[in-house]
Amino acid sequence: MSEKIRVGVLGATGMVGQEFVNFLADHPWFDLAWLGASDRSAGKPYREATTWRLGGATPAYVRDVVVSECKPSPEAPRLVFSAMDASVATEIERAFAHSGRIVVSNSRNHRMEEDVPLLVPEVNADHLRLIPHQQKARGWKGHIVTNPNCSTVVLVMALAPLRQFGIRRVMVTTMQAISGAGYPGVASMDINANVIPFIGGEEDKMERETQKILGELVSHRVEPLAAKVSAQCNRVPVVDGHTLCVSVELEKNASEEEIVGAMRGWRGIPQHEGLPSAPPCPVIYMEEPDRPQPRRDVERENGMTVFVGRLRKCPVLDYKFVALGHNTVRGAAGAAVLNAELMKAEGWLKK
Amino acid sequence: MSEKIRVGVLGATGMVGQEFVNFLADHPWFDLAWLGASDRSAGKPYREATTWRLGGATPAYVRDVVVSECKPSPEAPRLVFSAMDASVATEIERAFAHSGRIVVSNSRNHRMEEDVPLLVPEVNADHLRLIPHQQKARGWKGHIVTNPNCSTVVLVMALAPLRQFGIRRVMVTTMQAISGAGYPGVASMDINANVIPFIGGEEDKMERETQKILGELVSHRVEPLAAKVSAQCNRVPVVDGHTLCVSVELEKNASEEEIVGAMRGWRGIPQHEGLPSAPPCPVIYMEEPDRPQPRRDVERENGMTVFVGRLRKCPVLDYKFVALGHNTVRGAAGAAVLNAELMKAEGWLKK
Amino acid sequence: MSEKIRVGVLGATGMVGQEFVNFLADHPWFDLAWLGASDRSAGKPYREATTWRLGGATPAYVRDVVVSECKPSPEAPRLVFSAMDASVATEIERAFAHSGRIVVSNSRNHRMEEDVPLLVPEVNADHLRLIPHQQKARGWKGHIVTNPNCSTVVLVMALAPLRQFGIRRVMVTTMQAISGAGYPGVASMDINANVIPFIGGEEDKMERETQKILGELVSHRVEPLAAKVSAQCNRVPVVDGHTLCVSVELEKNASEEEIVGAMRGWRGIPQHEGLPSAPPCPVIYMEEPDRPQPRRDVERENGMTVFVGRLRKCPVLDYKFVALGHNTVRGAAGAAVLNAELMKAEGWLKK
Amino acid sequence: MSEKIRVGVLGATGMVGQEFVNFLADHPWFDLAWLGASDRSAGKPYREATTWRLGGATPAYVRDVVVSECKPSPEAPRLVFSAMDASVATEIERAFAHSGRIVVSNSRNHRMEEDVPLLVPEVNADHLRLIPHQQKARGWKGHIVTNPNCSTVVLVMALAPLRQFGIRRVMVTTMQAISGAGYPGVASMDINANVIPFIGGEEDKMERETQKILGELVSHRVEPLAAKVSAQCNRVPVVDGHTLCVSVELEKNASEEEIVGAMRGWRGIPQHEGLPSAPPCPVIYMEEPDRPQPRRDVERENGMTVFVGRLRKCPVLDYKFVALGHNTVRGAAGAAVLNAELMKAEGWLKK
Repeated sequence: MSEKIRVGVLGATGMVGQEFVNFLADHPWFDLAWLGASDRSAGKPYREATTWRLGGATPAYVRDVVVSECKPSPEAPRLVFSAMDASVATEIERAFAHSGRIVVSNSRNHRMEEDVPLLVPEVNADHLRLIPHQQKARGWKGHIVTNPNCSTVVLVMALAPLRQFGIRRVMVTTMQAISGAGYPGVASMDINANVIPFIGGEEDKMERETQKILGELVSHRVEPLAAKVSAQCNRVPVVDGHTLCVSVELEKNASEEEIVGAMRGWRGIPQHEGLPSAPPCPVIYMEEPDRPQPRRDVERENGMTVFVGRLRKCPVLDYKFVALGHNTVRGAAGAAVLNAELMKAEGWLKK
Repeated sequence: MSEKIRVGVLGATGMVGQEFVNFLADHPWFDLAWLGASDRSAGKPYREATTWRLGGATPAYVRDVVVSECKPSPEAPRLVFSAMDASVATEIERAFAHSGRIVVSNSRNHRMEEDVPLLVPEVNADHLRLIPHQQKARGWKGHIVTNPNCSTVVLVMALAPLRQFGIRRVMVTTMQAISGAGYPGVASMDINANVIPFIGGEEDKMERETQKILGELVSHRVEPLAAKVSAQCNRVPVVDGHTLCVSVELEKNASEEEIVGAMRGWRGIPQHEGLPSAPPCPVIYMEEPDRPQPRRDVERENGMTVFVGRLRKCPVLDYKFVALGHNTVRGAAGAAVLNAELMKAEGWLKK
Repeated sequence: MSEKIRVGVLGATGMVGQEFVNFLADHPWFDLAWLGASDRSAGKPYREATTWRLGGATPAYVRDVVVSECKPSPEAPRLVFSAMDASVATEIERAFAHSGRIVVSNSRNHRMEEDVPLLVPEVNADHLRLIPHQQKARGWKGHIVTNPNCSTVVLVMALAPLRQFGIRRVMVTTMQAISGAGYPGVASMDINANVIPFIGGEEDKMERETQKILGELVSHRVEPLAAKVSAQCNRVPVVDGHTLCVSVELEKNASEEEIVGAMRGWRGIPQHEGLPSAPPCPVIYMEEPDRPQPRRDVERENGMTVFVGRLRKCPVLDYKFVALGHNTVRGAAGAAVLNAELMKAEGWLKK
Repeated sequence: MSEKIRVGVLGATGMVGQEFVNFLADHPWFDLAWLGASDRSAGKPYREATTWRLGGATPAYVRDVVVSECKPSPEAPRLVFSAMDASVATEIERAFAHSGRIVVSNSRNHRMEEDVPLLVPEVNADHLRLIPHQQKARGWKGHIVTNPNCSTVVLVMALAPLRQFGIRRVMVTTMQAISGAGYPGVASMDINANVIPFIGGEEDKMERETQKILGELVSHRVEPLAAKVSAQCNRVPVVDGHTLCVSVELEKNASEEEIVGAMRGWRGIPQHEGLPSAPPCPVIYMEEPDRPQPRRDVERENGMTVFVGRLRKCPVLDYKFVALGHNTVRGAAGAAVLNAELMKAEGWLKK
């Protein structure tokens, strides 16, 4: 379709890249027509350059696309999604932004920089207003926008509806799926019938990214949320879906009904604008006593909803509950695509 | 050996009963010679009455023992371990205690009763002094002693060394093994490649049992520890070993070195007395950044030690760490046997 | 829609019944409007009578349908799918057939009876001609048609394209998913990180059902295929999808290309008639050296295709290969629905 | 102990090397005092050079041993076990043999060479007589002896007792544990809740190694067993233990009782000589209908026994059965150590 926006993926042959390929198939606004990868892959058709790790076969629409080098050549689209490994993302993303490209990145490299929006479209769409400051400070024609770590986004979406009650302290313990570690990722000898109570750097990311996303945009910068956040992160033998046990202390009194009502009633710009990848309800509260569960719930709503359940009083803080989100969809490819949709709807793709 | 104490197991054909059979093989003090089970099994040799669910084959020493009814008949030993299901344990355990038997129970039924010791021998051996009150109040010649729930014991043993710093608040999230649910227990359709964020009654048990065990014996009763405890309990696809993410607030300042030192230096009566099932160190602190792990650590030290790791500052409370214990050994059969060993060493089996 | 055929499910609250509910949602020909279950469930809305075990939530279209008793009352539809447990299926299915209902059964009870079609629509649609004999012999106005065991169907579909070369001997070893055992089915303590090399009755079913399905209809009865079939059946910790290692001896010479060509080119009446649940290709041959794999391939093609790979010479028989099929779709609910679609297309629903 | 034989391990820091370290702890004849590894590790204490992947902690007896380079320096012991990766084993093993060392290798590199014994001590101890021919042909003072692939050894030990009936044809399908692939080995994204129906090179190894081991030593060489062998190899999510579904055709008639009797009565030189690592019964036949199972049986008998069960008639060949063995013990470290024990008992270590 000629009116679609031509887009590309940086790091298209890796596992996150494959998730972008899957997620962008049949996208109504974006036409994935450019696939960037390492020099080793460049020049080959995607089907040859890629060992397809996801379910099913390599999608037909990209099988014959010839892979490009990750350089901002004239053929590279104006809008690119970055699925690059953190070890190489910094320089390449900057080169694209410098060249006038809009880089919508899933990499962690630029997330915590002061002039880079760390976005969850339902939560902090206004942080896009950092872009002009970023462009000015760096002398870029384009810019970089990021989405959070795959466990952070689940926490932030479950907390955002509670902002009205004042979030004071948050404790979270995660049980994270193996797909969150990419490929080859976690060795089966480590995780089969086991728990690994450690994910390098993850706890710090959850704590700081949460404060930034829930923070307030004050002139040129984001004032992080003052709430204290403490995370304990574990890997468990689950394929997709990060499960979080959350406990939260609030500034105001709120009944269980008010909490559940706030979650159920919560909508953001993606819902109001009807963005193509926006779920009708960003948070679904489940009544069943033993839900949500990753294997049974993670694929629902195209993986874009966070499921919450088991809200109950916490003897230490105020309330505790369970939250679940799809780490490779809402926590990676789907998150970035929704960011781009938001930017289009809000007019940021024209600038 | 003639000088061994003849003991029995109530509920010997079930999965916890099988764990007692395994744990008591070659015990230096106790001779497991009496196996009680349901009417359906009574009269059959153990090998026929039992579908052996644990690893290996039915131990040779009990294969031909004829199963008895769970009645305090003259042949029933004076010391019996109860592995009964909660649905039937109350009446049978009481009948045995009334008849003069010493019932060392793994069932939950009597744990929270005011005159029943809920014991972890390293932690609250003095709670045995409830026994005379129990006997007097109930008119029993025998008595009942209990061990905690399989997740509680891991928490309590990790916390006990910290009592010197004053325990004020505790948050714990568990990742519990399937063996904790008995047999058939958890359906594979529920837990394969999944997390179930719910275990019926478990959170309440962890919270209240912890307070009782760490409580102080004041004349006839236990004054529960005033600390607030909040538990979130999950089932994960692990065979043996409950992993806990703990966060704790202390009354006194303590450095990381002091905490680790307190854990490493902690010993109780079982260690001082050299009880046969006592581990040399009840808590082992591991330095590796990604340990303890259930599959790799749970079988060490005969399953009687709690492994702790990852001590670090908690932004919300004071410290957080990971603890691991063997739910069917230190959390069930081994716990009860250690209770009986303590009672023998302290002279309670004579009374 | 008024022109849809009103259908029912016997045993609708069980796990196979839930699979029918899922599979029949939005069916273009059939309107699932009647749900039969045990007396205990009858009279309740489906959402209350059922603990939903599959992914997601109970489908909206049946949530409020009031469950009926499994009796051929006037309200019971003329076409019913049977998802009943084998322990009760015989009498109820016969009562429905006797009353004039067409029973399309997934239960094993009537499969091997001489006058009952055991159908795989692509393979032996002509066996439907047993129906008049069945009706005459039993004095029924309705009739019973069955689909094979969930592992048999995968084998038969992989073998059917090879009939042209003459099938002489077949060896098969299965690795079967836990969902094949229903709910609660296999205990997690049995299958977690384990293999159970035994499934009661399964090997005999695979051997004899295969011979019947591939047999020839001779006047009133099916002459079983003379080929020898030997099955070894195992349970493995996989959620959905039975994987088969097959070795086959053929009467005629055939090159690897001819075998693959025969599989790829194979079509049956469901494809020629364009039945709604028919996959475009009943067998897909995969070139990748390590495929098919259950977790990655089982959900493709709506679960109605059998995937084959790794065709190579066998030093003992002639060829060996791997086959995979969805045990709860092509091996249960989808199989029965395709049977009913075939019957409609061939005019058997009018009779 | 001064009278123990000083031994070494080549490739001591890898996962197979770690298994040797575990298996040789407290060995009555061998004193593991030399640990060879890559240049990167050489010079460091073993505890620093190694990330311990097995259960528990690095064994105390090797923690402070300084790792050596894999060179036949004067300090290198006369008897070395090779746990080297196939990519580097050929040259290093040859250098050691050339220098006069006895190399007992678990690597696949030399297994199929005509003058190298491929040993299972109970099965073909006489193949050790290839050694002088090997030494002469290659001009070596030392020599190389190998043990089979981890799946081959299970098959061969189950078949060896049947040699008296004449083995004509063998079909085997394996379900192999992840530990067979080393570390990091199989990615969890590949095997979690999945089956991978492919293990590179494994089927060929099983077919050809089986023929060599069961072959007859004729003057200077082994005449492979003429039986046809066909293998299909799969990876399943099991930690330790390869499970095999075997079907066999025999030359002579044999009843089920005769087969089981042959397996149960089978003993070899390791049993007659009472070698330290020899299991009392090399094959244990289990009567339970659903055994052996890897998680429940693999650790029994120190992992040195092969468990067989489910013997029954095969409609295609003569008999089928299930066999299980410990792939990292009887299939790797334990196999090599038993080889060395055999060589000592038979006087080959003096030569």
